Amino acid sequence: MAATVVIDAMGNDHGVEPIVRAVASLSLQRRINMILVGDAKAITESLMKTPYDPSFVQIQPADSFVSMAEKPAVALKEKANTSIGIACELIAEGKGDALVSAGNTGAVILSASKNFKCIARVKKAGLAAVYPTEQTHGPKKDPFALILDVGATLHVRSYDLVVFALMGSVYAQIISFNKSPKVALLSNGNEEQKGAPEVVEAHQVLKKVRDIHFVGNVEGMDIPKGSVDVIVCEGFMGNVVIKMLEGFFDVVRNITNDIQSKKLLWRVGMAMISDRLDQIHNLIDWEEYGGAPLLGLDRVVIKAHGRSGQKAIENSIKVAAKAVEGQLIQKIEKGLAQLDWSAFEKET
Amino acid sequence: MAATVVIDAMGNDHGVEPIVRAVASLSLQRRINMILVGDAKAITESLMKTPYDPSFVQIQPADSFVSMAEKPAVALKEKANTSIGIACELIAEGKGDALVSAGNTGAVILSASKNFKCIARVKKAGLAAVYPTEQTHGPKKDPFALILDVGATLHVRSYDLVVFALMGSVYAQIISFNKSPKVALLSNGNEEQKGAPEVVEAHQVLKKVRDIHFVGNVEGMDIPKGSVDVIVCEGFMGNVVIKMLEGFFDVVRNITNDIQSKKLLWRVGMAMISDRLDQIHNLIDWEEYGGAPLLGLDRVVIKAHGRSGQKAIENSIKVAAKAVEGQLIQKIEKGLAQLDWSAFEKET
Repeated sequence: MAATVVIDAMGNDHGVEPIVRAVASLSLQRRINMILVGDAKAITESLMKTPYDPSFVQIQPADSFVSMAEKPAVALKEKANTSIGIACELIAEGKGDALVSAGNTGAVILSASKNFKCIARVKKAGLAAVYPTEQTHGPKKDPFALILDVGATLHVRSYDLVVFALMGSVYAQIISFNKSPKVALLSNGNEEQKGAPEVVEAHQVLKKVRDIHFVGNVEGMDIPKGSVDVIVCEGFMGNVVIKMLEGFFDVVRNITNDIQSKKLLWRVGMAMISDRLDQIHNLIDWEEYGGAPLLGLDRVVIKAHGRSGQKAIENSIKVAAKAVEGQLIQKIEKGLAQLDWSAFEKET
Repeated sequence: MAATVVIDAMGNDHGVEPIVRAVASLSLQRRINMILVGDAKAITESLMKTPYDPSFVQIQPADSFVSMAEKPAVALKEKANTSIGIACELIAEGKGDALVSAGNTGAVILSASKNFKCIARVKKAGLAAVYPTEQTHGPKKDPFALILDVGATLHVRSYDLVVFALMGSVYAQIISFNKSPKVALLSNGNEEQKGAPEVVEAHQVLKKVRDIHFVGNVEGMDIPKGSVDVIVCEGFMGNVVIKMLEGFFDVVRNITNDIQSKKLLWRVGMAMISDRLDQIHNLIDWEEYGGAPLLGLDRVVIKAHGRSGQKAIENSIKVAAKAVEGQLIQKIEKGLAQLDWSAFEKET
């Protein structure tokens, strides 16, 4: 049976338009059931402007939403019937299999954590970001790698890092068709004794785990190079890393856009080197990725970028459906059950 | 009186040559006394190949050195009379004012920590890196900002972050002629309640400190943009950040070098956009910086990059002399004494 993806249409930077267009377009291409949650009037008006297959699209009204500028905990407490809250409830009630939202990240994490349960043995969920790298990954030569956690946690214990490693590995297997993704801990040196105590401890556990292709520690330079498929770190660090990548892309974009806007004479020069500049642009095109999965809860949750356009939302919905069909939750559950937790006896 | 800078000539990626050339060149331009420590034969041979003023240059022989690949603690224990050890001893004995080394970073930190004392109230020294940013800084429009700690520590307490903020601010004042450098804490959000507990706590203390121009929290994207002059974080985070910057520069360099190596036709196009590509290259030229100061000890210590060429070493020696003449140590001491430490009563 086709997966049902529940999409929070509200609270992103570009309003309902690109989200509705993404859903309409997918309804004509794929067998994915989609429920749009939000301002029913705006969604309906937007849907009427574009061809779509109504048998795959439903609308679920929501009175309010959490905006980007709001404090998630406060907004979710004060507002009734927010789009993200209703979307999560639909899924908790079994009316949908996966959530996609481009809204306030904190609100997505809070609502999902409130409405869904942690998978057995998961103490802390992790938000994983897909980011562009110089090297490619997996049999489909994806130019993307995965890093988690990028902000669902602050500091974590070694136990959580091991859970993140397993979840990231399973996710990469399903989404990138990568049978044995290379997983590494982010540290300040490659040697196993290098790093903060929780990293050194997680290293000792991970090197004995058969079901994870653990390759040891990587350092900061390995992030943009993409020497591994999955990078594991605490959320405080991961959040700085992923925002730094965005900042760096912005700087490079400013410089290359400036080149492209120059006068005709320059354009002649441009044509000659355009394929290399395209390479830089591809590296910085967030639209290509399928959003960031929140891993560790018993439902599939994909957080799309707040600036997502139609293409990015389409990719996020496809990824959500792929995760459901690939049995992401069940495989994480099974993977965690098979791990040897004896090193963490106190905690399990 | 002119400053005396002690230079560890050994253990870097390019051998004694660029270091000796830097010293020789500076001896003809500046009133800086320089002591070269290392393989006396190699240094002498190298010196004979280039004009220099012997009244500013001395050689201090050392039997051995710590290589990049060695574990610093082990090498310093097993080897007698290492160049870094002798350099530090000379300074501790008062025969020199400042240390410059392009060798093994861990060995520099360990030797300096062993031979020099912490400035009063400093519990942990911090290694500060100068890195290139999109925005410029200070009255001289330096395209560089400062980030600390980048690896002398792992996790730290709020107390250490406050000390790092003060030391970074004083250093930027002296080196960039920036009277009131903007200082920020690296966090996962701009709001004061955002971040790991030690960051939130340091924020509360720093916002009340008059002598530091504290502007609050910055996020990852602010690092390459350079929205502030001094960024403060724990060493585990800072090490990943600074290596990630290097990795990103390498990726951009690979792409732009590839453009530049293309056939003649391309070169015509290249000429037309070369000033913008120069901008990318300047952004990634480590040679321009003056090395990374280790702050918190009672002597000036500048760690130059292991890949430093002559220009980078010259800049490091100039920065070391400038720090001595600008009374870096005394100003940090005075700044720390003037801070209100009541929030940390237990610790001071």
